Amino acid sequence: MADFRIVVAAHGALASGFLASAELICGPLPNVVPVPLEASDSPESFRERLVAAMGDPAEPLLVLTDLRGGTPHNVACVVVRDYPRAVLVSGINLAILIEAATSLSALDEDAVDRLVAAGRDNLVVVRRLVAEPAP
Amino acid sequence: MADFRIVVAAHGALASGFLASAELICGPLPNVVPVPLEASDSPESFRERLVAAMGDPAEPLLVLTDLRGGTPHNVACVVVRDYPRAVLVSGINLAILIEAATSLSALDEDAVDRLVAAGRDNLVVVRRLVAEPAP
Repeated sequence: MADFRIVVAAHGALASGFLASAELICGPLPNVVPVPLEASDSPESFRERLVAAMGDPAEPLLVLTDLRGGTPHNVACVVVRDYPRAVLVSGINLAILIEAATSLSALDEDAVDRLVAAGRDNLVVVRRLVAEPAP
Repeated sequence: MADFRIVVAAHGALASGFLASAELICGPLPNVVPVPLEASDSPESFRERLVAAMGDPAEPLLVLTDLRGGTPHNVACVVVRDYPRAVLVSGINLAILIEAATSLSALDEDAVDRLVAAGRDNLVVVRRLVAEPAP
């Protein structure tokens, strides 16, 4: 279990969806905090909730966003400037969240690179078109 | 808009979470069908709903799963054997779904490789630990 906070900043139901699905597999993950961007949010109102979720800037923190270029990601990019111990990873999949929440013990450069590699290794074409269907 | 069906097979709230978030960004995506694995599901009951969502085996189909090794993915791997025009991609992120639903016009090998590359390009470390916080 990670001993740092993990914030999932994502559009709408995806933020809590990632957490719920990870918990379906792993059990309770109390250090994971979803922060959804709602349709009614402004960047400012989302920023307020994100900052509240991020906790003490003196503590290590992993911020995971759903989409580079999206509002949750763009706001997070600005906010982390005030969090010197925060690491930000974009475009996450479920493998990233599970690996981070259950197996990542530190946020050093090598560990974060391995985390992203694990997420990318999970993102693959598993089955292509079958050129000649079996008769 | 893709002219083929896209099925998102994922644990619990993540399946509809991906769709809801993509629609928050892109508007309605009627060709995307979420199939959630619920905590109460058996692999068999999930398989039944997945097959119902996948439609006509004679039609092109893109199946997106949340986690290689998870039950939705494993069941999908078995089911697609009966769908010669189905392509299966695992470990998806939001970029994959949006790209597939809005910009992918065919399921040929090159197009699917570009789709996966787009998803991986979105999955990056955007900000590392700041070694020396500003004074």
